Formats: sequence, C-alpha cells, structure tokens
Amino acid sequence: MSLLIVIPNRDTTKLEQKLFELLPGETIEVWPNVQDFDAVTFVLAWLPPEDIWQQLPNVRAISSFGAGVDGLLSDAVPDVPIARIVDSMLAHDMAEYVLGHILAYKLRVSQYLQQQQGAHWYPKRAHQGRRVGILGFGQLGQKVAEVLVENNFVVSAWSKNEKNHQTVTCFYGDEGLLSMASESDYLVCLLPLTIKTQGVLNQQLFSVMPNHSVLINVGRGKHLIEDDLFVALQKQTISHAILDVFTIEPLPADHPFWRCKQITITPHASALTDINTVVAQIADNYQRSQSGNALINCINRKNGY
Amino acid sequence: MSLLIVIPNRDTTKLEQKLFELLPGETIEVWPNVQDFDAVTFVLAWLPPEDIWQQLPNVRAISSFGAGVDGLLSDAVPDVPIARIVDSMLAHDMAEYVLGHILAYKLRVSQYLQQQQGAHWYPKRAHQGRRVGILGFGQLGQKVAEVLVENNFVVSAWSKNEKNHQTVTCFYGDEGLLSMASESDYLVCLLPLTIKTQGVLNQQLFSVMPNHSVLINVGRGKHLIEDDLFVALQKQTISHAILDVFTIEPLPADHPFWRCKQITITPHASALTDINTVVAQIADNYQRSQSGNALINCINRKNGY
Repeated sequence: MSLLIVIPNRDTTKLEQKLFELLPGETIEVWPNVQDFDAVTFVLAWLPPEDIWQQLPNVRAISSFGAGVDGLLSDAVPDVPIARIVDSMLAHDMAEYVLGHILAYKLRVSQYLQQQQGAHWYPKRAHQGRRVGILGFGQLGQKVAEVLVENNFVVSAWSKNEKNHQTVTCFYGDEGLLSMASESDYLVCLLPLTIKTQGVLNQQLFSVMPNHSVLINVGRGKHLIEDDLFVALQKQTISHAILDVFTIEPLPADHPFWRCKQITITPHASALTDINTVVAQIADNYQRSQSGNALINCINRKNGY
Repeated sequence: MSLLIVIPNRDTTKLEQKLFELLPGETIEVWPNVQDFDAVTFVLAWLPPEDIWQQLPNVRAISSFGAGVDGLLSDAVPDVPIARIVDSMLAHDMAEYVLGHILAYKLRVSQYLQQQQGAHWYPKRAHQGRRVGILGFGQLGQKVAEVLVENNFVVSAWSKNEKNHQTVTCFYGDEGLLSMASESDYLVCLLPLTIKTQGVLNQQLFSVMPNHSVLINVGRGKHLIEDDLFVALQKQTISHAILDVFTIEPLPADHPFWRCKQITITPHASALTDINTVVAQIADNYQRSQSGNALINCINRKNGY
C-alpha cells in the first residue's frame, strides 16, 4: 500500500515532507521515480499523464490536488472514488481575486502603470459600472457573490438549475445566460469544467455583452473559445478580459494573448492551493481509503464536479 | 456682487455652465478674464495664485473646489469664512481607491502586467499581510477603515487627539505614530495638510516600518519627504509606495519617481470631485454668503482643516 504523487512540472518536495509528517510509516512515492507501481493504492494527482493509469492496477481512490478535478475525468482513469480539495481559504482567495481585479480595472491600475512607463500624467474618472454576473453559483460562486454584494456591487448569478437568493438575482438555462450577460458590466466564469460548460465563453455570449464590459475567466481555460475572444476584443464587442486560466498552461510564449493590451493575464494564480491547509484533507482521505471508509469531498463522476 | 472661479490649468466650462443653471441672474466670472475685480464677493478656488487676493477687496467668503483647502491657508488669503466640499461620494471613492490598490498590490497586478509584457509565466502566492495603519481618522479615514474592516483587514488609525473605536485600534501622539507604523503592512496617509502634518512621511517613520511594508499617500504631496522615500525604497527599508499626490502636480516628466518600479503612480485620481454632486453645495454657499448667513462645511482656519 502506498500513496503516489503525480503532479508533473512542479516541485513537490514540501508537499511530500508534510504528508510524511501526517502519515508516518506510510510509503509515499513521487512520479516519475516510482519503485513499485503495483503497491500504489492512492493517487494524489494534478493533470496526470493519460497513460499512467494502466501501470497502476491496484488504485482504490484518487485525490485531486485542487478544487477542480483537472485531467481526472477521462475514460482512462479507473472507476474509483475521486475526491477534490474543498478549502474555505480557496473560496476566500478567489473572492479576493475577483474583487481585487474588478477594482483594479475600475481604478485603471494597469492603464496608469502603462502611462507611468511613459512618464505620462493623464487623470481619468474611474469606470462606473457595478453590475457583476457570475457563471456558476456553487461554493466558490456564492462566496464571490457575497463579497461583491458587501462592496456595493449589483450581483447576478447563473446556474444549471433554478436557484433563489435574497440579494443575488438568479438566472438559469440557456436564455438566462444571455439575459444575464446582456446586463453585466463584468462577467465572471466560475463554472466547473464539464462537457456542457466547455466553450461556454464564446462569440454568441460576447455578442450580447455590453461594449464596455469585461470578461473574467477564473474557471478553466477550456471554458473559453480563445479565437472568439480575440475577435470580440479586436471588434470592441467587449472591452477587456482578465484571464487566469488558459487552454494550454503555462501560456506559450508566442500566444497572441500576451501582447494584447485588452487582456490582463495572471498565471493561474487566483487561488493557489495552500499546502498547510490542504495536506490534512489528503492524509485523511488516504487513511479513509486504506481502511475502506468513504472519502470526504468526493465528486459525482457523471456531473463532472 | 459676483462669483469668481479661480482654478488654474483646468477647463472649467462645465462647472461654469452648471453654476449658471443653479444661480440664474448672478454674475459668474472665470479668472484670469475678469471684467470687474471690485464686484467679486465670493471666490471658488483651487490652488489660486497668491497675488490674486490683493486685487479682490470685497470678498466675503471663499469655497475650495475639493475636500482639502489647498492654497487657501496662506497669510495672503483674506480673513473670511472658507468652506470645503464635503461629498459622501468622495469618501466612498477614496475607500474604493485604498481597498482596490491594497488588493492590487496583494494580488501582484502590476508585477504580472510587467511579466506579461515579457511573455513571462511565473505564478507567485499573493502577499499575505492584512494589517493597515491609517494616518488621519476624520470623515475620510473612518470610511476607509470601515470598508477595510468589512474586507477582513486588521485596521489601526492614528489621529492628533485620542479617539476610541470598536473595531479599529486607535493611536495618537508622536509615539503612537511610530508604534502603529511598526505594526502595519500598509500605511495609508489621509491627513489634512497643515504645518504640523507637513513632512510626516519621512525617514524616521520609514525606519520603523516593516521591510515588506507599503506606503500609500492619498493625502497631499507635501506630507511626503520625497527624497527620504526614494532612499528608503532603494535601501529596501520599505518595499513599495503607491502615490496619488505629489509636491508638484502634474509630476514633472523628469522626476525619478516615474522610473522607479517600487512606486505606483496615479495622477491625483483617487477621489475626483464630481461636479454634479458638488455644484449644489457651492451654489448654496454662494447664496448664504450673499444673504449674510453662515456657510456650510466651513473649516477652522487655526487647525487648517
């Protein structure tokens, strides 16, 4: 019985060390240097290579190393329980990212930085719009909405199924999405990535958004049709985009987004999983899986979240 | 009897027009094209030239065109009531500027923009500090404190006289200032500019601030000893400064602040006076002064605010 960490392209030394502390005596291996594939019963993964699963015949449970289950929904992944991280700090960090970037846009922080680089003094009134539409009204979306409402924004939210809320106007269904988008100064994508939500940020949506509006994608890269966004910005169908996630990450150096002044790029940094608050959840689920108990924070594989 | 607008280097056409609408039949003149200096009984001013007052023998009242009374405290200004603008939107805008810039710094908005200009992907955790010290706890300081507390910041405030507050730790006196500064991740200057507060942001203050701390000046340029700040940033005594006000405005193109990456410059845009909400206050005070009534929002000339 062992726990295997499969997190390509990242230094996992600290993570390993903290798991050792919480799981003394257990075998912890780190891909790709695996001693015994057959012994692996629990996999902690983030964007694992597709072909790894066929080498792991005895996996009983999988934990994602994040709030999403990226790379864990393909048919190659064995049919075992999959847990995700549910971290209240993630929701807090996400809310602060969305509020902070909306305020930074309102206050023209990037615009003034570009002026500063040319020693150019040109005061302008802050952007005035305060209507925010949120796509996705789960744990993250609700926290973001709450913080925005506290800061005097007028908040709407769109979800798959009909919901009701005291201070947030709720929309649902295809028509609801377009209605909400047409009345939003800022449109924030916080959806889980599923077959149904893939490509939801597309030309049709942009075409109903106000010309001065701003798209914020903190969901997943594949929610966005990147070419559609590029055209919408060039035609000034919408005004700006703030993107934390991309189809390919890291964003390739020759990608046109880097050089587009109407796009603010952050390097998937909106809500970084904090090892200190998260490792206990992983260790707990490891122990549960080894003793045959149900995992906490399991996803519904059919829904994809 | 006439109202004279003295706001050098700014287009006052809109202001004039709105005052005409609220004061039909009254004579409104705009410096420097003055028909009759002797007729002027009310002056609306912002940074007026010092030698104007000797040409205006019949002034009964003065209104500043802002929350501060910049350029209205010298001995050359006649001993008549001076009013300032008290605009609740100014306090709201100021709070949003301070919150927005603190969050933008926390979230590394400028840092990521500079990385974007080089197509460089390098995620870093957000800055963690949440302790904010506010210099000045009047109408503006209290509003800023309230908004920061709502957003889970730990707020202290320093004022000339001892104050008490439920959720804000209050400091006063010279020693209190240094104590508060030594425990602040962000130090925000919102003081009025007086002989006593001039130069309050100096080497002695910077020397007790934490090395990772950030100075935010939204008071007045003369609160800051600019050379002291430049040295403190170079020696990394403090980490960053966000400046909206400067000794000379617009900041001259050859000023070294423009090229300092540890300084964020905004062009005195933190809380722009909105003509629509302010012009009524000015017209009201004009009518009061002409009918011999006391002005609203008068300053105490001895205190300087």
